Amino acid sequence: MTVKMILDVDTGIDDALAVAYAAASPEIDLLGITVSYGMAPVDYTFRNTSVILESLKHNIPVYKGADKPLRRAKEYGGEFHGMDGLGETLGEITSVPDYGKSAVDFIIEQAHLHKQDLTIVTTGPLTNLAQAIVKDPAIVDMVGRVVTMGGAVMTPGNASKFAEANIIIDPEAAELVFKTELPITLVSLDVTRKTLLTAEDVLRWREKGTEVGAFFADFTEFYLKEYKKYHPYLKGCALHDPLAVGVAKNPALVRTIPMFIKVDLEEDALGRTTEDLYRTHPNEPTSHICIQVEAEQFMDDFFGLVEKSMGE
Amino acid sequence: MTVKMILDVDTGIDDALAVAYAAASPEIDLLGITVSYGMAPVDYTFRNTSVILESLKHNIPVYKGADKPLRRAKEYGGEFHGMDGLGETLGEITSVPDYGKSAVDFIIEQAHLHKQDLTIVTTGPLTNLAQAIVKDPAIVDMVGRVVTMGGAVMTPGNASKFAEANIIIDPEAAELVFKTELPITLVSLDVTRKTLLTAEDVLRWREKGTEVGAFFADFTEFYLKEYKKYHPYLKGCALHDPLAVGVAKNPALVRTIPMFIKVDLEEDALGRTTEDLYRTHPNEPTSHICIQVEAEQFMDDFFGLVEKSMGE
Repeated sequence: MTVKMILDVDTGIDDALAVAYAAASPEIDLLGITVSYGMAPVDYTFRNTSVILESLKHNIPVYKGADKPLRRAKEYGGEFHGMDGLGETLGEITSVPDYGKSAVDFIIEQAHLHKQDLTIVTTGPLTNLAQAIVKDPAIVDMVGRVVTMGGAVMTPGNASKFAEANIIIDPEAAELVFKTELPITLVSLDVTRKTLLTAEDVLRWREKGTEVGAFFADFTEFYLKEYKKYHPYLKGCALHDPLAVGVAKNPALVRTIPMFIKVDLEEDALGRTTEDLYRTHPNEPTSHICIQVEAEQFMDDFFGLVEKSMGE
Repeated sequence: MTVKMILDVDTGIDDALAVAYAAASPEIDLLGITVSYGMAPVDYTFRNTSVILESLKHNIPVYKGADKPLRRAKEYGGEFHGMDGLGETLGEITSVPDYGKSAVDFIIEQAHLHKQDLTIVTTGPLTNLAQAIVKDPAIVDMVGRVVTMGGAVMTPGNASKFAEANIIIDPEAAELVFKTELPITLVSLDVTRKTLLTAEDVLRWREKGTEVGAFFADFTEFYLKEYKKYHPYLKGCALHDPLAVGVAKNPALVRTIPMFIKVDLEEDALGRTTEDLYRTHPNEPTSHICIQVEAEQFMDDFFGLVEKSMGE
């Protein structure tokens, strides 16, 4: 059975890898990709997503969403993903793309259409999903599953000592989403840091000799260099966003435990994800956190499908 | 097979319950109890431990250990356990007890004697164990198992937003212990908050009509009132320290995952326990954190044994 999926991204290098992976997965029926600001401004993340799909010759609709967090300002420093969001491979946008339906309206429409059959995978800030819930709260009881790359529960954050980047960018959106009874699987740094891409993998892509292989190698090398600079304890760069796609395809990749998830909104631990001790409804949490991952099994599937899609 | 155990305590109300539980457990060969400062100054925690054992007619040796943290000062406010450490039931000490062998020397002696057969259960700050390791590092490779009540990994702390009390009292001692290759099972707030004692349990103890039942009811009621004041989200008071004893008796009570444990020594998150991203040796962590607990099974065993030991 295929997984009917909306992928909500802020492309972003590992988002690009997640898009390539989802689009190449025969088990996934990718209904559409919704985009928000995040790793770069939304006009860039939209452009980047479209370029990735074109490079792989996929015809999948892309919908523009939020251009800023619910209540906060967002600045862009170009760390990890470059100022263009794709490792300085695409540069500045020259024209604003023509947007059709909004991301929020697409999410609401598809929730009503597919209900329990719909899986939403988010790999960016949770702004689009939060706005969709605010606009139509009924979708909370419709959606079959939400798989969210975000948070750091047992492990230190990557954007601060306490917080993971997707959560701290828009902590109010994350708190709003996690406070609902959506069936969320949180794919946090606790597991994504166990799934690594190394220079050897990128070399294989480059040695394919295809245009798309070289393109992917170019922006992923940027990411690897940034990881070496900021996270020297890792032997490569983490496959954060692709793992969320992997968990949506195959829930058995991870061990999970149920937990009410709280996002800390106080400045001394902004964006920290922990157990919410004060939640009593419903009696059993509808959200789960991932605590262990079958890293090899995931990486085999990821590298196999993505490399195949780069051509010979 | 019985578990040869040293119980390292800072009695403390839930330590008192842990002492009663361990001493009443036929599966445990309680070699001795080592005591440190913690919930009260060490002369008090030593006195309290001795009084608990006498009240239950157990003849188990008690050894005095550390009277302060490795590098920090300790002040006593009387929260949760009272200024005397036992809910103001025993009051001030009138004479300093006669101490024999030190806690540190007893731990070292028993490690050499029983080696892999020795289980050390700690329910207080890790000062005694840290001092024993400093004095004789060889014990790290001898001891069969260490079960430590302490830390808060996925859940907020109880002594601060970030930290659990036993760890924040002497974070340097905890960091020293966790940095070794001791086979540690961390019984943290993540699981201890799921095991609760309520007013109904205490009422059953009181209704026994025995002296020891009334004594235990008196100090535990103090603890319940403090919990209601400070942790109103819980439906009772947490059986922190008894659960560590339960896990030492029956490892199957908890689901664990391997993790290198780091204690944050920076002031902005002092005493936080998280994954140590920078540890690479040994390749596999020797320490494990508890992520889920069979709460009912544990509580049945705990209440059954402790109530039986209170007489008819």
